[in-house]
Amino acid sequence: MKKHGVAILGFGVVGGGVAELLTKNSEEIKAYLGCEVEIRKILDLRDFPNSPFSSLVTHSFDEVLADESVDTVMEMMGGSHPAYEYTVAALKAGKNVITSNKEVVAGFGDEFVALAEKMGVSYRFEAAVGGGIPVINPLLGCVRQNKIREVRGILNGTTNYILTKMFTYGDSFENALTDAQAKGYAEANPAADVLGTDACRKITILTALATDKLYDVKTVHTEGITGIRKADVLFADSRNCKIKLLGRCIAAGGREFIMVAPFLLPSDSPLSTVNGVYNAVEVVAEPLGNVMFYGQGAGAGATASAVVGDLLPIIAYGNANPIKPGFNRVGTPASDSFGDFESRKYIAFPTEYAEKVQKIFAGDEITISEECVILTGYESEKATDTKIASIGVEPLSKIRFL
Amino acid sequence: MKKHGVAILGFGVVGGGVAELLTKNSEEIKAYLGCEVEIRKILDLRDFPNSPFSSLVTHSFDEVLADESVDTVMEMMGGSHPAYEYTVAALKAGKNVITSNKEVVAGFGDEFVALAEKMGVSYRFEAAVGGGIPVINPLLGCVRQNKIREVRGILNGTTNYILTKMFTYGDSFENALTDAQAKGYAEANPAADVLGTDACRKITILTALATDKLYDVKTVHTEGITGIRKADVLFADSRNCKIKLLGRCIAAGGREFIMVAPFLLPSDSPLSTVNGVYNAVEVVAEPLGNVMFYGQGAGAGATASAVVGDLLPIIAYGNANPIKPGFNRVGTPASDSFGDFESRKYIAFPTEYAEKVQKIFAGDEITISEECVILTGYESEKATDTKIASIGVEPLSKIRFL
Repeated sequence: MKKHGVAILGFGVVGGGVAELLTKNSEEIKAYLGCEVEIRKILDLRDFPNSPFSSLVTHSFDEVLADESVDTVMEMMGGSHPAYEYTVAALKAGKNVITSNKEVVAGFGDEFVALAEKMGVSYRFEAAVGGGIPVINPLLGCVRQNKIREVRGILNGTTNYILTKMFTYGDSFENALTDAQAKGYAEANPAADVLGTDACRKITILTALATDKLYDVKTVHTEGITGIRKADVLFADSRNCKIKLLGRCIAAGGREFIMVAPFLLPSDSPLSTVNGVYNAVEVVAEPLGNVMFYGQGAGAGATASAVVGDLLPIIAYGNANPIKPGFNRVGTPASDSFGDFESRKYIAFPTEYAEKVQKIFAGDEITISEECVILTGYESEKATDTKIASIGVEPLSKIRFL
Repeated sequence: MKKHGVAILGFGVVGGGVAELLTKNSEEIKAYLGCEVEIRKILDLRDFPNSPFSSLVTHSFDEVLADESVDTVMEMMGGSHPAYEYTVAALKAGKNVITSNKEVVAGFGDEFVALAEKMGVSYRFEAAVGGGIPVINPLLGCVRQNKIREVRGILNGTTNYILTKMFTYGDSFENALTDAQAKGYAEANPAADVLGTDACRKITILTALATDKLYDVKTVHTEGITGIRKADVLFADSRNCKIKLLGRCIAAGGREFIMVAPFLLPSDSPLSTVNGVYNAVEVVAEPLGNVMFYGQGAGAGATASAVVGDLLPIIAYGNANPIKPGFNRVGTPASDSFGDFESRKYIAFPTEYAEKVQKIFAGDEITISEECVILTGYESEKATDTKIASIGVEPLSKIRFL
């Protein structure tokens, strides 16, 4: 039976998961791929003297590069550098690259895809969005005969765990975060999760898959969940809604509205039922309707499943695979269109501004109790922001309805 | 640009949807497939004088067969005959076949796949399970590097609509069915839906995809929803459960437990949140964990999306596609193992049997009120059935917990 050689870059949680999967499921993998997979090198800064793979560990990327028996490099180091440099070097050396690293895909996907094409090899990244959930391959290979209207998703398990805790137990954001850290779902420095940065990278990737346009992640309107208050949870409850941090790419008339922000989801929205550390991606398309892909968005096993799964198209089709992402770099900032994005909004101000609010938001539904709560109609960001500026103070909350 | 010729067999709801999709989304389809798709023939018993496709309509299958410009035949007639004969003839004539017809896939999939292989063409059927939801392609192409422990799903929209009505509005089965018929979700003769036959065909197909074994559908343990009573809904509610008709294939120690039956699902099961006419398929695998695919399981547009989507692997890879179902016909009846299937069960008897029940189900949780309700522990079908036989009367209800 043919053998396919792989190198693992980064022997952490995911890299370790891949090595374990390749070992434990070798029979399934042989049947799946029609060939055996052998780990030829493992690159890490550390040694792993007690690992069954210790003899494969190297500290030199050049050794990996020079090893002609390595057909595919699996990059699971995370971060932009040296992941970027290693990816370029591996592709230039005629090796396929698989990655679980959303930062590097969102930042340089266009360059990698073009280079892979030039070198006649493959660049694949199913694990970069939604962990183990098959999202990227179905999006490229099963739905693009449709007119894609929107791709939206719960793309970050840490924030979804925190929001679920806030809704289920009435926890404050701070308490829920502490709990998530204690359980290992959030890192000591949780900024990339709670500020929406991680979800932003993922929606940027999904946007490229749905529209062929790769935007600069730094230009995508991104809000996190640090500002979500108990009062917002109570309001949402009173409307039979949940608050979820969504990445959304809405395609409308040749342009895109791309954003990461908390949204109020009615209970009949399938995304509203996604709880805890689970992720889900929903595609709205014509004539398909709504489809959703749901599962574990992180974790060693789930992510390893996606990394190893990407070997199938590489081994079966190689560069002949027509299911390639159309990563075309867009110079325009994604935020350029955002002012025209229309939505219904829940906005809260301190009651002392009630009089001003009633004047400026005249025509909207206004409730004055502990706070002065406004429910706007469908209205552009620009229009709402102009009104808020006229109040002369930042609102306590501003959350859009899905 | 290259052209790919197709013939549509059966110009009903789905066939019409395919023609409309190929027309309305021709730009998306060109980008997706890298070629144009042209309808060359439409086979139907009827004429369609007012259709824009009227000139393509023929009543003769031989004409379709003889048309060398037809590369792929899309069979959307439903039923076993003449779908079987037409499929065999088309494959023998060197044409690819795509179908949305679960009856013919479940019945003869092994024969078709083998014949397609022999003829160097493709046989594909994404639309046969879950309508528009990408299920079959992801199952074959994204998860089989895992050890698949179970595939289960809400595979029939009509019964899920009826059960949703019963839970949301307290409707009886009869009233909910009448409503489903009025809305066009259930046919005048709803037997294939409400008795579980349709779901049985689909779980038989999913079993083959997950295990490479094609069982005889007639040997799969199949219960419908006609026996679900208001009392069962109230019991489920009291336990924070929903009742859903599931198709399940559980792979355990080299054998399979395959069944279609109503199950009590706790509210944290993702399948419990699938309402109305929606379908969902959940895969439980190692190390992937649980993933779920959700969407519209029927309807012209969704089903047409899956049929047209199947053109991608045909055009891109043809018979070189390694993602092929391993339909190996199994002689053993699927029901052979069913007696050993273990589950917790809710069983109700009339109160007059309370004394007998307390003796025979001693050790189980028993509540006597309007009815005598038993909650068993994990127990095999055989063991429970023996106890029920000792009571000497059929129970009012017997529903398994997921």
